[in-house]
Amino acid sequence: MRASRFFISTLKEAPADAEIVSHKLMMRAGMIKRLGSGIYTYMPMGLRVIRKVEAIVREEMNRAGAIELLMPVVQPAELWQETGRWDKMGPELMRVKDRHGRDFAIQPTSEEVVTDVVRTEIRSYRQLPVNFYHIQTKFRDERRPRFGLMRGREFTMKDAYSFDRDTAGLQRSYEIMFDAYTRIFTRFGLQFRAVAADNGAIGGSGSHEFHVIAETGEDALVYCPDSDYAANMEAAEALAPTAARAAPTQALTKTSTPGKQRCEDVAALLGLPLTQNVKSIVVVTEGEEENGAGKQVWLLLVRGDHDLNEVKASKVPGLAGFRFAGESEILEWFGSPPGYLGPIGTKKPVRVVADRTVAAMSDFVCGANETDFHFTGVNWGRDLPEAEVADLRNVVEGDPSPDGKGVLAIQRGIEVGHVFQLGTRYSEDMKATFLDENGKPQLLQMGCYGIGVTRILGAAIEQNFDDKGIIWPASLAPFEVVLCPMGYDRSESVKAEADRLYEALTAAGIDVILDDRGERPGVMFADWELIGVPHRVVIGERGLKEGKLEYQGRRDTEATAVAVDEMAAFLQARLA
Amino acid sequence: MRASRFFISTLKEAPADAEIVSHKLMMRAGMIKRLGSGIYTYMPMGLRVIRKVEAIVREEMNRAGAIELLMPVVQPAELWQETGRWDKMGPELMRVKDRHGRDFAIQPTSEEVVTDVVRTEIRSYRQLPVNFYHIQTKFRDERRPRFGLMRGREFTMKDAYSFDRDTAGLQRSYEIMFDAYTRIFTRFGLQFRAVAADNGAIGGSGSHEFHVIAETGEDALVYCPDSDYAANMEAAEALAPTAARAAPTQALTKTSTPGKQRCEDVAALLGLPLTQNVKSIVVVTEGEEENGAGKQVWLLLVRGDHDLNEVKASKVPGLAGFRFAGESEILEWFGSPPGYLGPIGTKKPVRVVADRTVAAMSDFVCGANETDFHFTGVNWGRDLPEAEVADLRNVVEGDPSPDGKGVLAIQRGIEVGHVFQLGTRYSEDMKATFLDENGKPQLLQMGCYGIGVTRILGAAIEQNFDDKGIIWPASLAPFEVVLCPMGYDRSESVKAEADRLYEALTAAGIDVILDDRGERPGVMFADWELIGVPHRVVIGERGLKEGKLEYQGRRDTEATAVAVDEMAAFLQARLA
Repeated sequence: MRASRFFISTLKEAPADAEIVSHKLMMRAGMIKRLGSGIYTYMPMGLRVIRKVEAIVREEMNRAGAIELLMPVVQPAELWQETGRWDKMGPELMRVKDRHGRDFAIQPTSEEVVTDVVRTEIRSYRQLPVNFYHIQTKFRDERRPRFGLMRGREFTMKDAYSFDRDTAGLQRSYEIMFDAYTRIFTRFGLQFRAVAADNGAIGGSGSHEFHVIAETGEDALVYCPDSDYAANMEAAEALAPTAARAAPTQALTKTSTPGKQRCEDVAALLGLPLTQNVKSIVVVTEGEEENGAGKQVWLLLVRGDHDLNEVKASKVPGLAGFRFAGESEILEWFGSPPGYLGPIGTKKPVRVVADRTVAAMSDFVCGANETDFHFTGVNWGRDLPEAEVADLRNVVEGDPSPDGKGVLAIQRGIEVGHVFQLGTRYSEDMKATFLDENGKPQLLQMGCYGIGVTRILGAAIEQNFDDKGIIWPASLAPFEVVLCPMGYDRSESVKAEADRLYEALTAAGIDVILDDRGERPGVMFADWELIGVPHRVVIGERGLKEGKLEYQGRRDTEATAVAVDEMAAFLQARLA
Repeated sequence: MRASRFFISTLKEAPADAEIVSHKLMMRAGMIKRLGSGIYTYMPMGLRVIRKVEAIVREEMNRAGAIELLMPVVQPAELWQETGRWDKMGPELMRVKDRHGRDFAIQPTSEEVVTDVVRTEIRSYRQLPVNFYHIQTKFRDERRPRFGLMRGREFTMKDAYSFDRDTAGLQRSYEIMFDAYTRIFTRFGLQFRAVAADNGAIGGSGSHEFHVIAETGEDALVYCPDSDYAANMEAAEALAPTAARAAPTQALTKTSTPGKQRCEDVAALLGLPLTQNVKSIVVVTEGEEENGAGKQVWLLLVRGDHDLNEVKASKVPGLAGFRFAGESEILEWFGSPPGYLGPIGTKKPVRVVADRTVAAMSDFVCGANETDFHFTGVNWGRDLPEAEVADLRNVVEGDPSPDGKGVLAIQRGIEVGHVFQLGTRYSEDMKATFLDENGKPQLLQMGCYGIGVTRILGAAIEQNFDDKGIIWPASLAPFEVVLCPMGYDRSESVKAEADRLYEALTAAGIDVILDDRGERPGVMFADWELIGVPHRVVIGERGLKEGKLEYQGRRDTEATAVAVDEMAAFLQARLA
C-alpha cells in the first residue's frame, strides 16, 4: 500500500471521553471514529487490524473442522421466545418492530438461530458432530457503553456452536475448540491465559474464559505458578484453612467502638490485626410467595480482610437470586444500623452462613448489633451456634491452590474469548433432536464458543503500548513494515530505492506501506509510532551513499544500519 | 475441502413460497435457509459464493483507489434527520429505539454516516479526491419481500462514496467507478449491460445501472445493437417521428362503439390499425393548497399500442408527483366513464399533454367522452387545439435510437449495481465542506456506487441454470472443481487417486471439493449438478485401469476421458 492511496488521520490529543489507553490510542491513530455512544466506524487503519484478526480466527476455526455460515443480524422474536430469552434478556437485547408490527431482536448472539438451523438440518446421528460458526455484527445495548471497543454496543464477534450426540462428544468438541483458541491467541502474538469460569445461570458442565493479560484488565485471574491451575475470580475456590480451629482463650466481651463501622477502624481502635475481625453482610431472598411470607434474611460472614464473592454466595442452597438488604430491613432484623452487625443477638432470627475461613476463627471480633459496640473474643459453639459453612470469599494472593500444588497468584486480564458447554439448555427448549442408531430422537448436546473480534484490538493495545503509541504484534499490525523515505518528493535516489524496496517486499508477501506523503521526518515517525507498525525502514540520501538503510523495530531504542541489498532478507527473518 | 468436513444439504423439492428459479435452486442446493420473511441464513455453500463475490468486488475497488472502512449497522437518527431522510424514507427504513429511548435506523445505505465521517476528516482540497467503501449488512423493510435473495429485507451491499472538489472531479471519480464495475461484472463471468438511468427525485447529474441479463429480469433494458446506446426503460428517450404530420383526409365523425373500451377492441371493431388509435389517461396533481384549489386534472395521450412511461410523465412541468384519477373524478371532469375518454368536449377543462408520436398523428381515433362512442378522423388544429407535447411513452423495439445510429432493441435485466452522481445533495444538508486553495469553504461533490452482493447470487442463477440446477461461472462457484470418486470407501486405487488429485489441485491453488461422503454415483452427480460446480472429475476403477479419468463440464452433454497425469494441467487450462 502507498500512503498516498490510503487514508491516514492521526490526532495529537485524544477526545475527552476516552478514558483508557487503548481507546485514546485508537482514536488518536485514526483507527476508529465515534458515531454514537458505543457505536464506532472502523476507519481504514482499524479495519485492516480487524481483518487480520478475522483471518487468523477463520483459518484456525476451519482447521478445527468448524464450518462457516452467516446468520442474520435481525432475528425474529419467536425464536427468542422459545428459549425464554426474549423476556429474560432485559434492555440489553435491542428490540425492533417491522412495518407489520412483528417483533425482532438485533442479535447479541445466535444460539436460537443456530439451534433452529440444526433442528431442521440435522436428522441423524450420522451427521454429528457438527460445528457452525460465523463472524458477524452484534449489538448489545449496554447500560453504560465506554472504553471504545472494549465495551461498545455494536461489535463484531466470532461465535461458534457445536452439536454432539452425547456429553462425551460435547467434551471432545469443547476440547477441540479450546485447542483452536489456544492456537488463535498464540498466533495473535498476545500474552494470554485460559481460566476456568463459572457457568453462571446458564448451567452446563464446563466453561473457560480466554483473557489477554493486561494490568488495566477489568478481571482478576487466579493462577498457580507451580501448576496449570487457573480460574477467574468468580470460580477460584478458597480452600478451608488446614489448621484446626484454635480453642477459645478470651471471654466474650462487649466493647465500645464509637463511630467505628469499618473492620479496619475497629481493628485499629482495638489494636488487633484485621484478620481477627469478621465482616457481616446482610442479604435477602424473597422466596416464591408474593405476600412476602417467603422472605428470608441472611447474614454472610467473611474475614475482615476478605471480600465477598457474590457468585459463590449465590450458589449456597437457598441463596440463588439474593439481593443486598436495605437499611430499614437491617434495622428491623438486627435492631442496629449497618456497621455494628453480627451473628449474636439479632432482633429477629436470621440464617447465618460463615465463610470457611471464618468458621476456622476463634477469639474473633464482630458487631454486637448495637450502635457503637462490637464483641471481642467471640467463639463458635460457645458464644453462638456453629454456623452453616460455605466458600463465600474471593481468593487472595498466597491462598493455597485448590489443586494442592502451591499458592495462588493473581493477575489482571481482559476477557476476549469464552468457551462453554451448554448441554441441552437450548436444544430442550427448542426441541432440537436427532435420531440415534435405534431411530429414537435424542436431544442435541450443544457447546458455544465466542471471540470478541473487535475487542481483541483494545485488549492487544492495553497489553502493548508505550508513550509514543501502539505496539502491534506483527500478526495484527495494520501493516507489518513501513518505509519512510526522507525526501521522497525531492531526492531521485531516495525515491528510486523506496519504490524498489516497496516492490520487492510486496512481491515477497510482506504487508508494507510506503509513506509517500512527503511529510517531514518528525511527522512521519510520530505517525507510525502512534499507529504502531512494528518494523520501520528509513531510506535517506546519506545512508544510500554508503549503501545502507536504517531499520528500527518499534520496541528498539535505536536504529540498525542494514545494507540495501540485505534489507528484504533482514525483514523476512524478523517477521518469520 | 473434503465434503465430509463440509455441510451439504440438498432438497428434491423447493418450498412452496419459492416463486422464481434462483430462489428455488438456492433453497434446493442448500445455499440459503429462510429465517423469516426476506431474512435468510447464508448456509456454508451459499456463503462461499458470497465470499467470492466480495473478494472480486474488494480487489477491484482497491485497484480503483477506493479505501475500505466499515460503518455501523445501527445508526443514530440525528444524521438521518439532518438530510430529511428520517421522515422521507417511510416504513422501508427500519427504526429502533435504544434503552434510553433514542432513535436509530438500521442502515439501508450509508450516505449520512459517510458524509459525517468526511465532514470531520476532510479539511483541505489536498485530501481530495477520496472514495470510501464498505461491504456491510443492510436492512430494508420491503413491503413484500420475495424471490429469495432478489428482494430480501436483510442483505449485503457494497456501497462506495466518492468526494471531490468540483463536478469535473466527480465526473472523473464516476468514470473510475464505472470502469471498476465493468471489470467486476466481467470477472464475475456474467453477461451484463450498463444502462443510463433516470436520476429520480434524488437529482444529480448522472446515473447508470448495471444489469445482469436474464429473461426473467424485472427491468426492461433498451439498447442499440449498432451503437453503445443503452438506457433503462425509464430513461430511454422516444424520439418524435421524423416524418411531418400528414394532412387531414377524413372528417371528424362520432362513431358508435358499444362496449368497446380498450383501444384494441375499438380498432378491431372499426377495422383500423391499433396505431391509428389514441389512448387517454387521466391523472391529477394536487397543487400546494390543502383545500383542493390547486387540484388540476390532466389528460395524457399516447398511441394505442404504446405504454405510458410514468417517470417521463412526472418530468413534464407541473406533473411531478401526479396520481391516476379515480372513477368519480373522471365522471366529474369528462362526463363519461373510463373507456370512452378523449380530448374533445370534456365536461370541465383539463390540461392535455400529447406524446410526441400522438402529436404527429392525423385522422386518429379517440373517445368521445360519451358512453359507447368514439371519434374517428380526429385532427390536431382542426378538431382540437394543438396540445402540449412531451415524451410520455416507453420506447418499443424498432424505435430509432436517440443517438441516431440505428434502431432500439429491448432485453430483460436484473439490476445488481448502480453508480450515481449525487453532487451536493447530501453535503449541502450536512454542511460537508473543504477549504479550497484560497482557504474558502466549498461543498463536497459526492458520488455513490452500490453493488448488491447477495443479489448477485440470484441474478447469476437466473442467467445460468438448466433443469438439473445451477451453472455457476467458475469465478463465483462455491467450488471450481468437484472430484467424484466411485467407491471412495471401497476401492483403494480410487481412494488413492482421488486423494492424490485432491492434494495436487489444492496445491495448484484450485478450489476443489473431494466428495468423500460415500454416496451413490447418482446422488453425488445430482447433488453437484444442482449445486452447480462447473467442472467435475469422476475417478473410477475401470478408467484407472486404462490410466484415465472422466472430465465433464457442467454444460457439457458428455464426459471426456483425460489421462490421469494430464488432469491437473487440463483443469488449469479450463480455469485460466
